[in-house]
Amino acid sequence: MVDRIILASASPRRKEILEMLKLRFEVIPSEAEENIDMETAPGKYVTELALMKAKEVKDRLEARGEDLSHTVIIGCDTVVCYDGMIIGKPPDDVHAALTLGVLSDSWHSVYSGLALWHGDVCEAGAERTDVKFREISEREIWKYVESGEPRGKAGSYAIQLAGASFAERIEGDFYNIVGLPVSLFVRMLKKLGIDICDIAEY
Amino acid sequence: MVDRIILASASPRRKEILEMLKLRFEVIPSEAEENIDMETAPGKYVTELALMKAKEVKDRLEARGEDLSHTVIIGCDTVVCYDGMIIGKPPDDVHAALTLGVLSDSWHSVYSGLALWHGDVCEAGAERTDVKFREISEREIWKYVESGEPRGKAGSYAIQLAGASFAERIEGDFYNIVGLPVSLFVRMLKKLGIDICDIAEY
Repeated sequence: MVDRIILASASPRRKEILEMLKLRFEVIPSEAEENIDMETAPGKYVTELALMKAKEVKDRLEARGEDLSHTVIIGCDTVVCYDGMIIGKPPDDVHAALTLGVLSDSWHSVYSGLALWHGDVCEAGAERTDVKFREISEREIWKYVESGEPRGKAGSYAIQLAGASFAERIEGDFYNIVGLPVSLFVRMLKKLGIDICDIAEY
Repeated sequence: MVDRIILASASPRRKEILEMLKLRFEVIPSEAEENIDMETAPGKYVTELALMKAKEVKDRLEARGEDLSHTVIIGCDTVVCYDGMIIGKPPDDVHAALTLGVLSDSWHSVYSGLALWHGDVCEAGAERTDVKFREISEREIWKYVESGEPRGKAGSYAIQLAGASFAERIEGDFYNIVGLPVSLFVRMLKKLGIDICDIAEY
């Protein structure tokens, strides 16, 4: 039985994805520090971060004396990888433009880690989606960067906004790129004995 | 030079995609009759329908004496294919449930045709995206069908709404499944001599 769902992330994209699935949930952003070694393999990296984020919220609520036995806590983390390197959020517009120049006309991978705590049981895993960008001109890159959209986005683009036309082909779960692998989410719930039909309100 | 963009489709999904690309456009739904032989290969089928839809709007406006030399008219059509058969919109809830039962735990293909008229020059083509559905229980199918979401949707699902979690993997352009292959759109504009930077308002 589930009577409470908590998204341990402040990302508006992840919030939109859970809303799309018609879930009723609350947002309690994790305060976990992201201090995992960047040399870790990306799938392991995002899984560990997703776990840490969910665990930090769980520990915090339990320290307050809250009973979480019927609660699901969702932790997520997403990174973009190019040529073996993890590319995070751009520190400024120049780095965003450089990143998009590198991604243009080539393939990169997006990894999202997902961790679900249900009471004291946990499921965690990661999904990889490969993305092929079309050729993007310097002019288009700068116009996009100046729009502000790359700011705060791993890989400097948002596939669900004006960056949509960059991806000419993807292989994997689309929503994994946006920040939450929805199909894995439903399958992980099932492993925890939770049927999506019992929590989705449509 | 482009001073007017017309979407020859009443589909709210296609409208949303063009809005996402920050285009300023008007909607003039095509009144073309969809009388193409269903035996036609799907890529050819959607390309021909997209062409017919755009052409009907072009002819109608020209008959009124409008000058379309700086206008782009966009025609689109999308179908879902399973095992060589074209699956259209479900006529009722029972057909929607049957369709989803067939698509569960297997692959299908989505074809979108796109036709662009710019003055008297035309570009047309189609994209295919392959989609793998996870296993969906009978209970989940009926809950989804009863929500009304499958109505009016080719293949009886909406990947950009609650149907998102059905697709565990896609191979191709995501927006092609929603109804308008955005990357092909930008590349076709380029062939017509139009830079997306000159028409996108971001």
